[in-house]
Amino acid sequence: MQTALQYAAHHFDRFVDELIELLRIPSISTDPAYAGEVRRCAMAVADHLRMAGFEIVEVMDTGGHPIVYAERIEDPALPTVLVYGHYDVQPPDPLELWTSPPFEPTIRNGRLFARGSSDDKGQMFLHIKMAEAYLQGSGRLPVNLKFLIEGEEESGSKNLRPFIETHRDLLRADAVMISDTSMFAPGIPSITYGLRGLAYVQVELTGPSRDLHSGMFGGAIENPINVLARLIAGLHDARHRVTIPGFYDAVRPLTADERATFAALPFDEAAWKAAVRVAATRTEAGYSALEGISARPTLDVNGIWGGYQGEGAKTVLPARAGAKISMRLVPDQSPADVVQMLHAYFMAHVPPTMTLTFKDLHGGKPVLVDTTQPAMQAAARALHDTYGKQPFFTREGGSIPVVADFKELLGIDTVLMGFGLDDDAIHSPDESFGLDRYRQGILASIRFAHYFSA
Amino acid sequence: MQTALQYAAHHFDRFVDELIELLRIPSISTDPAYAGEVRRCAMAVADHLRMAGFEIVEVMDTGGHPIVYAERIEDPALPTVLVYGHYDVQPPDPLELWTSPPFEPTIRNGRLFARGSSDDKGQMFLHIKMAEAYLQGSGRLPVNLKFLIEGEEESGSKNLRPFIETHRDLLRADAVMISDTSMFAPGIPSITYGLRGLAYVQVELTGPSRDLHSGMFGGAIENPINVLARLIAGLHDARHRVTIPGFYDAVRPLTADERATFAALPFDEAAWKAAVRVAATRTEAGYSALEGISARPTLDVNGIWGGYQGEGAKTVLPARAGAKISMRLVPDQSPADVVQMLHAYFMAHVPPTMTLTFKDLHGGKPVLVDTTQPAMQAAARALHDTYGKQPFFTREGGSIPVVADFKELLGIDTVLMGFGLDDDAIHSPDESFGLDRYRQGILASIRFAHYFSA
Repeated sequence: MQTALQYAAHHFDRFVDELIELLRIPSISTDPAYAGEVRRCAMAVADHLRMAGFEIVEVMDTGGHPIVYAERIEDPALPTVLVYGHYDVQPPDPLELWTSPPFEPTIRNGRLFARGSSDDKGQMFLHIKMAEAYLQGSGRLPVNLKFLIEGEEESGSKNLRPFIETHRDLLRADAVMISDTSMFAPGIPSITYGLRGLAYVQVELTGPSRDLHSGMFGGAIENPINVLARLIAGLHDARHRVTIPGFYDAVRPLTADERATFAALPFDEAAWKAAVRVAATRTEAGYSALEGISARPTLDVNGIWGGYQGEGAKTVLPARAGAKISMRLVPDQSPADVVQMLHAYFMAHVPPTMTLTFKDLHGGKPVLVDTTQPAMQAAARALHDTYGKQPFFTREGGSIPVVADFKELLGIDTVLMGFGLDDDAIHSPDESFGLDRYRQGILASIRFAHYFSA
Repeated sequence: MQTALQYAAHHFDRFVDELIELLRIPSISTDPAYAGEVRRCAMAVADHLRMAGFEIVEVMDTGGHPIVYAERIEDPALPTVLVYGHYDVQPPDPLELWTSPPFEPTIRNGRLFARGSSDDKGQMFLHIKMAEAYLQGSGRLPVNLKFLIEGEEESGSKNLRPFIETHRDLLRADAVMISDTSMFAPGIPSITYGLRGLAYVQVELTGPSRDLHSGMFGGAIENPINVLARLIAGLHDARHRVTIPGFYDAVRPLTADERATFAALPFDEAAWKAAVRVAATRTEAGYSALEGISARPTLDVNGIWGGYQGEGAKTVLPARAGAKISMRLVPDQSPADVVQMLHAYFMAHVPPTMTLTFKDLHGGKPVLVDTTQPAMQAAARALHDTYGKQPFFTREGGSIPVVADFKELLGIDTVLMGFGLDDDAIHSPDESFGLDRYRQGILASIRFAHYFSA
């Protein structure tokens, strides 16, 4: 490990130059016009893996953008780490808000500004540099390594799950390592051990067969918007808990330790509220805001429509109204089960004046990784050594579907060791990644491999 | 009166031909391309008034389409009737659904098919023919007559209220006569003595300063759509009554007589439900469907919006949500007062996480005409003589703003003696007016003038 750490320190300036070259490639996966650039970027990643010392490197077709795969089995007796990342990036619009062009990487105040610098080229690349530091520094890895770097993360990862399904043997490993999340705060290293799942449905209520005149029919024909509002309102109680029967049944309670960790996190609620300009938070009774956004299930209406939305006053009693409703889930809630429960709620409460259309649009399972397992402890130790302080184990409110896929299809837990920061402006103009975090990430990755092999 | 009735019977075929000529003019007031035709129609109406025997006839500019005014003061001691009507029509689209072209009037099965035949050229014209029957038949009118025929009813009557305001002396009268409503059912004559008023507002709730990721923020940031749904749901109780404090305070209760009349009306609720394809009606507890749509106040959401309304699943926690909310009012509710009450309700219930925008878009006062006054009794007697049965006094759920304007600005009550039928298809393809009703309308108008003069 010491040799690898020294190698990384010695060659860090070159590592920065190589990342800058990778960031010059506009690998925008959502825009078909950039398909050639996406492929060029896959080739560049493959070249970097070869230069790092991998002999087995493949750019594999998926039907969409290619997946870069590499592996080196140092010794079947050693544990195997599967590194996942993505080399594609978000579109850079609006271009006029960038201080320097998105694909002309520029260093200012210790930060590297470019589209993809933090999400995810920079964070993915630091693991390739870890491998190089070992292989070029000492000629061998402390663990077996596999790399799975996809090119469709920013466009929905349509081909990833099928790829994993058809390559179960190839991808067999003891742990997945992903750096595509954020640290809790600057200088506060953290490992994400929980992610919420998602259930997303669309409902529509139909009353009369056509839009009616509210003067001639109002008072005896029930209004789909009013009914929909009533049904939505009934989904929460006064304590801001979801009322759907059975909704909380499968929720694993927060342990005292977990709650203590949440309480200890340096969460600046005032600054957080100010950032989105709300006067007050609103959390399920008995839980903090931080617990509410990461460790408790929620129900939100994501969209609603019905009747006349234009200028002025149109006196319509509409024929229909609809809404998109999503629920963030925590272990051990099942997306299919909660959709079933929500459907039952609607069926029980839709009045005889209305017909209901109910569509299950999208779902993803929640994830909770045992923090005591070797890979998690190795990552914690690596971060501790790198930052001089114990990292926090944190939970995130969003979903990373691939983490649930790895668990479901391969049975492998994921270590989410992120080096991003909230102000990296990912998906926005002036995305950047701190060079200090790039360096710390490489060193932490080197240490992780070492500790995990022990 | 007998002379006039005989004159009308004798010249009825010519009266039909003249109406057909008037219906050939495409006086579509909403479409600026037809402004010339609208003016030509005003001129034609003025010519018909002159041919009927009026010496004072004016086509008066309004800033929009002209108003046709005529008057004949037979004797200052006689009562004065102000006939209101409109010569403009709705656009005829979709043209392909007309059996015969909208501006080529065609008689089929005793009905005259053309745009405007029922709404309102045919119903307006029958009063001109009444005047002609008196003036050409016997040389004098039994009452003083004023005609106010506007050309902007189908496009909002923007210039009508200012016109009335600036011509108060000119328009002075003892009663207003309007034929622009429907009979209760075929062969069931009726006089509308009540119209609901309207209060129409737009509300918007703003939570966070921008749309947020529902995974990262859901659970601690209150969702404007969910709050709006809760506030809307709270506007009704389980008995389908409006909960706004004070809402019913000014409502004049239905009398036992009125309720008996409602119960006696030949209302086919099953057919009515089938026409709009609803399985059940939903009325304020304690009231019939017919009472609900005409004699009780209501609250309906006319439109709602917020968040993502497109295809698929977007996990947004929206920054804002809005709705258009209207209330149909009955005497003696005041639009300004109920808007005030609704505003107070929102102010009291909007949580500290949200800011409220509240806009008063539109209002109109409810109308209830004393059925015992001479003009109403004269109309009832005229209908009785014409149809051989007692007419019903009915209330309508919609608003006719000009009726409230006449009351407010001139202090005059309106007699709504309509000869339309629900299946006249006004505002739709194949609009028609029964020639029998055209004839009955002329005779009833002649009798009304006679009885009112007595």
